[in-house]
Amino acid sequence: MAEEDIRSEISQLGKYRLISHLMGHDEKNNPPAHVIDDAMVTDTGGQLTVTAQKLFVENVHFDLTYFPLKHLGFKCATIVFTDVLAMNALPRELSLCLAVSNRFSIEALDEFMAGVRACCHYNEVELTGLDVTSSVAGLTVGMTATGAVEPDRLVRRNGARENELICATGDFGAAYAGLLLLQREKQIFEATHNSHPDFDGYEYLLERQLKPEPRLDIIRKLRELDVVPTAMTAVSEGLATSLFHLCEPDTLGCTIYEGKIPLAQLTFDTLRQLKIVATTVALNGGEDYELLFTIRQDDYEKVKTEHEIAVIGYIGEKNGGRNLISNDNKQIELKAQGFIEQEK
Amino acid sequence: MAEEDIRSEISQLGKYRLISHLMGHDEKNNPPAHVIDDAMVTDTGGQLTVTAQKLFVENVHFDLTYFPLKHLGFKCATIVFTDVLAMNALPRELSLCLAVSNRFSIEALDEFMAGVRACCHYNEVELTGLDVTSSVAGLTVGMTATGAVEPDRLVRRNGARENELICATGDFGAAYAGLLLLQREKQIFEATHNSHPDFDGYEYLLERQLKPEPRLDIIRKLRELDVVPTAMTAVSEGLATSLFHLCEPDTLGCTIYEGKIPLAQLTFDTLRQLKIVATTVALNGGEDYELLFTIRQDDYEKVKTEHEIAVIGYIGEKNGGRNLISNDNKQIELKAQGFIEQEK
Repeated sequence: MAEEDIRSEISQLGKYRLISHLMGHDEKNNPPAHVIDDAMVTDTGGQLTVTAQKLFVENVHFDLTYFPLKHLGFKCATIVFTDVLAMNALPRELSLCLAVSNRFSIEALDEFMAGVRACCHYNEVELTGLDVTSSVAGLTVGMTATGAVEPDRLVRRNGARENELICATGDFGAAYAGLLLLQREKQIFEATHNSHPDFDGYEYLLERQLKPEPRLDIIRKLRELDVVPTAMTAVSEGLATSLFHLCEPDTLGCTIYEGKIPLAQLTFDTLRQLKIVATTVALNGGEDYELLFTIRQDDYEKVKTEHEIAVIGYIGEKNGGRNLISNDNKQIELKAQGFIEQEK
Repeated sequence: MAEEDIRSEISQLGKYRLISHLMGHDEKNNPPAHVIDDAMVTDTGGQLTVTAQKLFVENVHFDLTYFPLKHLGFKCATIVFTDVLAMNALPRELSLCLAVSNRFSIEALDEFMAGVRACCHYNEVELTGLDVTSSVAGLTVGMTATGAVEPDRLVRRNGARENELICATGDFGAAYAGLLLLQREKQIFEATHNSHPDFDGYEYLLERQLKPEPRLDIIRKLRELDVVPTAMTAVSEGLATSLFHLCEPDTLGCTIYEGKIPLAQLTFDTLRQLKIVATTVALNGGEDYELLFTIRQDDYEKVKTEHEIAVIGYIGEKNGGRNLISNDNKQIELKAQGFIEQEK
């Protein structure tokens, strides 16, 4: 066929340029707001319905050699709930589709569902639908979560304005550090067929990798504080990617401070042992499933004493630079390639 | 690990018993209504939002050796829109996730998206979200569609009552007949590496297999006629499965008439050439993506002249038989195994 004469490799474009291309936007034109949001919005007259969808593929998104199925169920639900939360909506319902090969027993699927159910339970979400189908290779999970939000509370990715403050929740890099520990054990096991992992003292890192929890508490807290962020996104591929997402639609600039990026001491120490710079992991690691949002300066007083919310910098002018001010007070440009390179 | 000591194969249960088990319902207890619907329902105060999700896996749900990618995109969208329509809702937004291996070029994905966009365009649905991720093998498509419906128009699977009429839209078996023709050509090609398929005169069957269209027209027509079905479901795995779904929650009986099942003459003739009984295909074939619904007897006058709606039988009493009255006036029991056997 004629169209097969031209073949352009997916790898030529980064993930986000590929998505933009497939959605029919050229590189010069910004896509409409909704296309770059974490979830889609349906207006049926009352509160808005927010719908987030994710696909998880075995050996791409998870490795069952060290990932217990129960934790996997919990984590997949967390990830899709996080996308709902990133619109400032509260998750309501979850439906899922499983494609499973005959490698999986009913007991294995029971474990997975127990994790899904636990995550639904903790977050007051109703599990409303399940479909199971065959797979030729491994496990693929499709999850769709709905949520609800009052129209005046909806937050999109593209609402940030100059001089607004950039806030991050929780801490960063722990899940990536946990992954490194698990991968190291896997390599030892594969080499020696004998492994007695001793994760004593590293529980927090493993927990952040294996059982991240959706930040429902933050969305509730923001309501309590009467703060509506001007823009928000989930942090799933490192702070840098999410930061660019908040700046991108309007090509805004930003400045963040290395010293303000929240890091657990254990994350810092563990990465140091592994000879990895913690800031690099926070910026370009991934799987934190925290929230990154911008607020008006007027709202600073309301959030400044909140333990789980850190103001890490501010939005700069349009076409301004995107910089990190390092601990030794150097200005380092955050590069767009930074997040393109680390894409799968 | 202890839990691996017991291993029950998925194949022990049929698809629907497996789903019921994983959702935490035992065999004696009927699941709550929403669990067995074609889509999930979110009530945010205005119209209801209906959300349908589907997963399509290469070499399980589609075979790219004879399925053009553009048609695949169109068909996947049709299938997920059909689940929205089956709740008597009109589709509104679509988001999708693609997991693709590097076998696929950008041009291939462009083709797929062109099909998706065409189906969205014809059905006045907005394409609002896209995510692309890696796959270790082939193409997996996750699609989520939302729709809206007034609360008093929502139709679930479990609303049928004794003596109500069973209605089917369009005609049946054509997509399955089209599949048989395509599979025959594939076998010829694999055996001879030379195939000049001549599908002249069979276009309708191929179209029903390769480019099924969602029955938006039916849902609009029902509104025009002021008919709200009492129960409805999509017909994706043959009439028998869908019929059991409508009867199942309340273990109702039903009677349908072989002579009333809508079949295109071409479907009948083609299947006859292939020595297959057309009624068997209509009951147990699949991929028709038509709608099956029940109406009150009072509404019969409103639908009886509608070309695209056929009354094929009626709902019988609770715990009554589920029967097909054949053309030679024999009563044949529709067996539950009928639809379990043909599951993947």
